[in-house]
Amino acid sequence: MAAAAGEPEVIRDKAAMRAWSRRRRAEGRTVVLVPTMGFLHEGHLSLVSEAAATAGPIAVVVSIYVNPSQFAPTEDLATYPSDLAGDLRKLASTGAVHAVFNPPDLYVRGGTAVGASAGAAVSCLEAAVGGDGHETWIRVERLEKGLCGSSRPVFFRGVATVVAKLFNIVEPDVAVFGKKDYQQWRLICRMVRDLDFAIEIIGSEIVREADGLAMSSRNVHLSREEREKALSINRSLANARTAALNHSNSASEHIKKQIVQTLTEAGGQVDYVEIVEQESLVPVETIDRPVTICVAAFFGKILAVLVGDSPLEDG
Amino acid sequence: MAAAAGEPEVIRDKAAMRAWSRRRRAEGRTVVLVPTMGFLHEGHLSLVSEAAATAGPIAVVVSIYVNPSQFAPTEDLATYPSDLAGDLRKLASTGAVHAVFNPPDLYVRGGTAVGASAGAAVSCLEAAVGGDGHETWIRVERLEKGLCGSSRPVFFRGVATVVAKLFNIVEPDVAVFGKKDYQQWRLICRMVRDLDFAIEIIGSEIVREADGLAMSSRNVHLSREEREKALSINRSLANARTAALNHSNSASEHIKKQIVQTLTEAGGQVDYVEIVEQESLVPVETIDRPVTICVAAFFGKILAVLVGDSPLEDG
Repeated sequence: MAAAAGEPEVIRDKAAMRAWSRRRRAEGRTVVLVPTMGFLHEGHLSLVSEAAATAGPIAVVVSIYVNPSQFAPTEDLATYPSDLAGDLRKLASTGAVHAVFNPPDLYVRGGTAVGASAGAAVSCLEAAVGGDGHETWIRVERLEKGLCGSSRPVFFRGVATVVAKLFNIVEPDVAVFGKKDYQQWRLICRMVRDLDFAIEIIGSEIVREADGLAMSSRNVHLSREEREKALSINRSLANARTAALNHSNSASEHIKKQIVQTLTEAGGQVDYVEIVEQESLVPVETIDRPVTICVAAFFGKILAVLVGDSPLEDG
Repeated sequence: MAAAAGEPEVIRDKAAMRAWSRRRRAEGRTVVLVPTMGFLHEGHLSLVSEAAATAGPIAVVVSIYVNPSQFAPTEDLATYPSDLAGDLRKLASTGAVHAVFNPPDLYVRGGTAVGASAGAAVSCLEAAVGGDGHETWIRVERLEKGLCGSSRPVFFRGVATVVAKLFNIVEPDVAVFGKKDYQQWRLICRMVRDLDFAIEIIGSEIVREADGLAMSSRNVHLSREEREKALSINRSLANARTAALNHSNSASEHIKKQIVQTLTEAGGQVDYVEIVEQESLVPVETIDRPVTICVAAFFGKILAVLVGDSPLEDG
């Protein structure tokens, strides 16, 4: 039903965005949101395809917004890649996107910037916000911990909060998230359940480059050599999958060690390797049910993409 | 426009509630929510009147739900008064309420109850929730601190979270909160702003008994003697107002001392007395702009109602 979308309408204002969605819903359309931070690649476009496959008359909205509150001051907000013109061309070429929501800023900035209280983890947003500025945060207290949450203490707080804001502005019936960001996807599902958002969350499968690297906007920062090395993530996961499927050794500790070894030998600096239950993200000791292997490693200065896999799903 | 409401429809199911609201909105009505914890008194009914005064065709929903997550395990969840039949009679008699939302439980309970981590403040909800149970919380980080937040560390977290849930279930256009719970009202306004809820918040003025005590469901627990004593809150605020309006002494410290003295002499045990800016709730040293005086004190075992006042508003 999305074939007739043509050139997407670009909307920058919150109230205009909400009014647009309400008009579409009043026409009987299902509003489908694909939240992104821009610099779109095939992975994002696969989310759009997933959105376009929603049954019945639909209105597909892609949001493009680099959310400052999910970056710590030490992280790469300033160098996060962007290319709005290119993004709009790519989205138009799909013929499946009806509107692009590209707001200038989604947070109320306070009068006086205040420093963080001693020892508190703060985001790039809080470094600039004080006084009567933004102060409401959503925390998914168990799922935000561990994995990427260990080294990025404000990341999931920022993600949950901006996604709730986007949900309240766009008022979608359906929203599509990539399973590449596995912890994020699970966390959003939990937030939707716990806060009773009337939104169906669709998890879209990982899209990989021809060489097997999971697609990510940050891949552009990888040198050719680093990229070669980053492929070790995929290789190590394939090996782990084989090992688990063959039941040659189903102890998590053993498989994790093998992965760490593969990554380290390839020159990666391992952030974490965990084998977890698929919904709770609680680490398992033995692989005796569907699990996800989560891996994050630095190659050069770039934290290579977190990759989820499910060795027993087709076992 | 609410005169024809008659007997309100009682709805217990989340999905049915949302469907009801969407039908009303599709008819062109403004959906107005009055959230309560039941055991209704004239104060609540004044919120209903406020709701009924909304312009245009409306649909008024009163929610009745005692929210476990805003009570600490040491607080009075178990003895919080309730009278659903009486509540429904009172609401029907207003002729202004179209639906009552009275859900059995709004939280997902987990498989295994887990203890709180050492030293963490927990609510009555968390005492019963573990495993995959509810874990998403909204915090309004500055406004939740101080005043009632000092002695009730999980209170506003529970309030913000349940109100967001009610907003997502009922999907109102307007919601009415009493200014008696001044900090709560300001905090909800801030949450709505920060998370971009498409809801207009109306603050309704305090309703007092004939003797001047602000109406509160918990007043029923006061003995006649304690009630007499609790009137000292109102008396002390009236004196403070007079003092501030006369500019006899505008130092907050001075006025606060007088209030504490009046309350203590009446046999109350003061929880806090603060004079704060009206939006930020930041304490002021000198009363030279519109402020609110916030007072909470125990009479017997009952924390007497927090009362806001604005000495300079008509000065």
